[in-house]
Amino acid sequence: MSIRVGIVGISGFGGGEAMRLVASHPSFELIYAAGEGSAGSRLVDRFPGVPAKLADLVIEKWDPATLPKLDVLFASLPTGASAEALARVPKDVKIVDIGGDHRYVEGWAYGLADIWPTQIAGQTRVANPGCFPAAALNALAPLLANKLIEPGNIVIDAKTGISGAGRGGADSRFGYAESNENLAPYGLLKHVHMPEMAKTIERLSGGSAAGLVFTPHLVPMTRGVLATIYCRGRATTDQCLDAARRFYAGRAFVRVTDKPPQTKWATGSNLAFVSYAADPERNLVIAMGVVDNLGKGAAGQAVQNANLICGLPETAGLDGVPVWP
Amino acid sequence: MSIRVGIVGISGFGGGEAMRLVASHPSFELIYAAGEGSAGSRLVDRFPGVPAKLADLVIEKWDPATLPKLDVLFASLPTGASAEALARVPKDVKIVDIGGDHRYVEGWAYGLADIWPTQIAGQTRVANPGCFPAAALNALAPLLANKLIEPGNIVIDAKTGISGAGRGGADSRFGYAESNENLAPYGLLKHVHMPEMAKTIERLSGGSAAGLVFTPHLVPMTRGVLATIYCRGRATTDQCLDAARRFYAGRAFVRVTDKPPQTKWATGSNLAFVSYAADPERNLVIAMGVVDNLGKGAAGQAVQNANLICGLPETAGLDGVPVWP
Amino acid sequence: MSIRVGIVGISGFGGGEAMRLVASHPSFELIYAAGEGSAGSRLVDRFPGVPAKLADLVIEKWDPATLPKLDVLFASLPTGASAEALARVPKDVKIVDIGGDHRYVEGWAYGLADIWPTQIAGQTRVANPGCFPAAALNALAPLLANKLIEPGNIVIDAKTGISGAGRGGADSRFGYAESNENLAPYGLLKHVHMPEMAKTIERLSGGSAAGLVFTPHLVPMTRGVLATIYCRGRATTDQCLDAARRFYAGRAFVRVTDKPPQTKWATGSNLAFVSYAADPERNLVIAMGVVDNLGKGAAGQAVQNANLICGLPETAGLDGVPVWP
Amino acid sequence: MSIRVGIVGISGFGGGEAMRLVASHPSFELIYAAGEGSAGSRLVDRFPGVPAKLADLVIEKWDPATLPKLDVLFASLPTGASAEALARVPKDVKIVDIGGDHRYVEGWAYGLADIWPTQIAGQTRVANPGCFPAAALNALAPLLANKLIEPGNIVIDAKTGISGAGRGGADSRFGYAESNENLAPYGLLKHVHMPEMAKTIERLSGGSAAGLVFTPHLVPMTRGVLATIYCRGRATTDQCLDAARRFYAGRAFVRVTDKPPQTKWATGSNLAFVSYAADPERNLVIAMGVVDNLGKGAAGQAVQNANLICGLPETAGLDGVPVWP
Repeated sequence: MSIRVGIVGISGFGGGEAMRLVASHPSFELIYAAGEGSAGSRLVDRFPGVPAKLADLVIEKWDPATLPKLDVLFASLPTGASAEALARVPKDVKIVDIGGDHRYVEGWAYGLADIWPTQIAGQTRVANPGCFPAAALNALAPLLANKLIEPGNIVIDAKTGISGAGRGGADSRFGYAESNENLAPYGLLKHVHMPEMAKTIERLSGGSAAGLVFTPHLVPMTRGVLATIYCRGRATTDQCLDAARRFYAGRAFVRVTDKPPQTKWATGSNLAFVSYAADPERNLVIAMGVVDNLGKGAAGQAVQNANLICGLPETAGLDGVPVWP
Repeated sequence: MSIRVGIVGISGFGGGEAMRLVASHPSFELIYAAGEGSAGSRLVDRFPGVPAKLADLVIEKWDPATLPKLDVLFASLPTGASAEALARVPKDVKIVDIGGDHRYVEGWAYGLADIWPTQIAGQTRVANPGCFPAAALNALAPLLANKLIEPGNIVIDAKTGISGAGRGGADSRFGYAESNENLAPYGLLKHVHMPEMAKTIERLSGGSAAGLVFTPHLVPMTRGVLATIYCRGRATTDQCLDAARRFYAGRAFVRVTDKPPQTKWATGSNLAFVSYAADPERNLVIAMGVVDNLGKGAAGQAVQNANLICGLPETAGLDGVPVWP
Repeated sequence: MSIRVGIVGISGFGGGEAMRLVASHPSFELIYAAGEGSAGSRLVDRFPGVPAKLADLVIEKWDPATLPKLDVLFASLPTGASAEALARVPKDVKIVDIGGDHRYVEGWAYGLADIWPTQIAGQTRVANPGCFPAAALNALAPLLANKLIEPGNIVIDAKTGISGAGRGGADSRFGYAESNENLAPYGLLKHVHMPEMAKTIERLSGGSAAGLVFTPHLVPMTRGVLATIYCRGRATTDQCLDAARRFYAGRAFVRVTDKPPQTKWATGSNLAFVSYAADPERNLVIAMGVVDNLGKGAAGQAVQNANLICGLPETAGLDGVPVWP
Repeated sequence: MSIRVGIVGISGFGGGEAMRLVASHPSFELIYAAGEGSAGSRLVDRFPGVPAKLADLVIEKWDPATLPKLDVLFASLPTGASAEALARVPKDVKIVDIGGDHRYVEGWAYGLADIWPTQIAGQTRVANPGCFPAAALNALAPLLANKLIEPGNIVIDAKTGISGAGRGGADSRFGYAESNENLAPYGLLKHVHMPEMAKTIERLSGGSAAGLVFTPHLVPMTRGVLATIYCRGRATTDQCLDAARRFYAGRAFVRVTDKPPQTKWATGSNLAFVSYAADPERNLVIAMGVVDNLGKGAAGQAVQNANLICGLPETAGLDGVPVWP
């Protein structure tokens, strides 16, 4: 029996990636798609390579009053747009919100699926982590859980491909000619992903206050996030790697490597790669985390969360091998 | 019951893509991998995102005398290297040669799978078409079969991403800094893909002699081939599109579009896109064909051919939606 | 004594490149800049690397009634916007229009500077060729002038970097994530550059009617245009090269090469590269032309034209060596 | 009177950029070029856009015994190769070593030209800083000189375009297909640029011991270095900016900006951009430095150093405006 799935925000990159994953999912059937910029188009008009069975699905203008009967709704809307848009969705429709409005909001589970799968499993409303948190927190979690680093002194230097800036943007800064061959820091000391990272660090460290510096950078590539994280701690590299291997033992999507991870290792997949380099004499631990910002950083983790709340195998529809090169 | 699969040439891009597709295939089990540059490594050392079940498979040095019992072997070796390498493979191992040595060679079927599936189905040795032919011939076939163009007067202006140049290359011309932001024609009037295209055009046109100009270009992108083809003919655009829609009716992988196709539509998939623009008053038909050079242009078509010769559904393991963006 | 220069359209790529070249020009002094999107900003706010002497020049809102006293005005406005905008500029201000509105318009010289320098020298109104024509016509001119090809049967397959699409565009098609790793044909059988190419071919061939097929493609790179041109003719490769060497003897900016030219050879410069490959038995001549679409294809040729109409050495301010890699 | 210049290592990216700058320099005349990979070629064979006056210069095999009479030699050789190669150059030939072998070596000035021009001016042997130090040290210098940060606690997260890995490499890691769309940390805790940065930090801070963490990353772009530097200090953003503006007052090439600097601002130029963001309550100063790794990070600074030791204006031949976009 298939699970009836809808996607709102199909015109954007996150919604498009959700469509791609749902289309290949063994238990999901996409029966509804809505999008601001593409309402009235058929799916094949926006995604020429969509499977024949989905080609003629007409993209709707979003209106919760006219939703068909759905089991799961993926929402991928701009920050600020999803709170209201989702409030009127019937209670019996499970929601995974890829957007940022419901993270650490009452009634919504924070969907860091590789770390808290059992806490997510029983929910009907899940707020997907942001792409930077997905990269950084998976790398930090084993260190925090094992008290190998100080939660109060963490510097996250993060780098994202340009799809992380979203599609809507008519902003020429994200135009090809201006973004190509350009590397740019932005949002210093005030990025919107800071609060969810700080809260999660506190939760992972058993309540200790987080002290966090976070600097994102735009990198001239389409997909991929790397977080290079500078921490204080006396552990060795091997102790960090061992802690991570134990922490993620039996988990499907987080890979612990002894080489510095590269963004291309994860492209198109729901994988996260974490690694560490430490110098105990200098009280230094460097943690590194890589994800595809549209995979584990958005739609991949969303499907994983949907699997959890629907009682499906966590890996259903997510076993694609990364695209390389 | 799973089909035992081997891959030789796993270090290269074509072999790597074959691995990616085999790993997700519902009926194939990868039990053997060989590669010049990576012998002795585990699969996970070369492909960090490989599924756990394949992680520890050790890459062998190629030696047909020590092959395990295989049902199908994919070969992706440099031009000139596969004729000898494959001669000693046992007769009961079916072979799909992604490399160029067996195209239009006695005893080998030419694996243009979307056009001649039934002729391929009964074979045990299939020579996969080159990436440029895959893009161009799928676009030309409906025109030639319906005599809408003159086979003796065809100009193919083809463009490929740089993975088309192969991986082995220590050639600094293919280094990032020199290839990036650079567009370069090469191999004018003498590219190695000319003969198979000429022979196929003759076959498709019922024996008429092909007259062919072929100019490949290297484009600064990783994947993708576009062939823009200038032909003589009196058909209208709609007549060309209709001919193509009839020609590919019921076929899974060739999509006929009324918009000029873009390489990104096919990325990571086995799809081919074809389109046409004609001006009958000027005796002009422009045909356009797009493939992913590692998908339909190499490993995707190879898996399709293997499905055909193994009696599997043609689409098995090939239903992935293109990666976008 | 310095020549007072103004630029209108400074916010766009063509205007920006004109600023770059004027800033280093030994005889030009930039005293006026106007731009839609950047009016009110200082030059340094838009171009952080501008020389200190120009940093505080305030970008104006365009108004011909408030122009300072200028000797030369460079205009780089969107198609359709310059005809009216320039009509009210005082007659004693020389104008080079980089935009498309005045090509083959009464009272304006067509500024194909490497071919007709003396016809341009005495003018006060020059219409700069488009980027595709700059690449194609420099390659075709020696063949047409020597009657080595038929003007009635020319196929131009052209490829441009994405800055050729202009900057204004809020169009997500030109966004990084969608343009990167994508190659796209567009404007088939109807591109706006067709008429000026046809007229110039007729002029170069002594009045014979041009028969022209033109297909532009967007290539994922910032700068560069390559035109690969398929012609009918019985000349050998050497005869074509010799004709071109004679045609451009003593000219500074067109380089005749016996290797297929690559776009990166020209990046950042006013150079054009031309080459040829012919097969007389097949009645085939392939001509290739490369320019930087913002150099010889826009601002470089504009400065060359300004040099000509100001009586300066043609190469003044244009001796920069291409940036490589 | 022109200054006779030679370049050894012309086949590499640093040597090529030195050629580009020397070719446009008002006082330099390139009379000698040597290179391992291109000996016997004419300059135009390697650099198709070279000025006509230099086209036929034949690249020599390096041999100090057969040097023509030179005033200045630029050396751009792989690490480990220049110490011996340069030992036999006559004493009266001034040398700027772009390579890494002579940094903080007896008898060689460390050529951080924007900071210590007068100490460099009287020398005949100058060791050019590495590209990462060029980016980082220009940003750190004003903070260290004004004691606004602790020299013992500096974290440099640096990112470089792939030309920074050099050209020689036959390494497929730097091939286009593998580097494109990939972001990779490397050399953790042990990069070769660490010692010169530590020594310079100590020198700038009046002898205090440097404590330095340095993590370089390869970014999929050709040129550009950004250093994002995390420091301890109680200064405000404005205090940092003011200190930098005073420090670089009257200096030509270092631009202090209040926006985070982007690598493309510097492309093709000898400029360095520095900026700062501080949070005194958290004891945090973030310094950012941008250079073109082949400009200020290699050949640009080398020409600046050559200007200094030849008694020329420091900006001679270096007034090119960055290429944008």
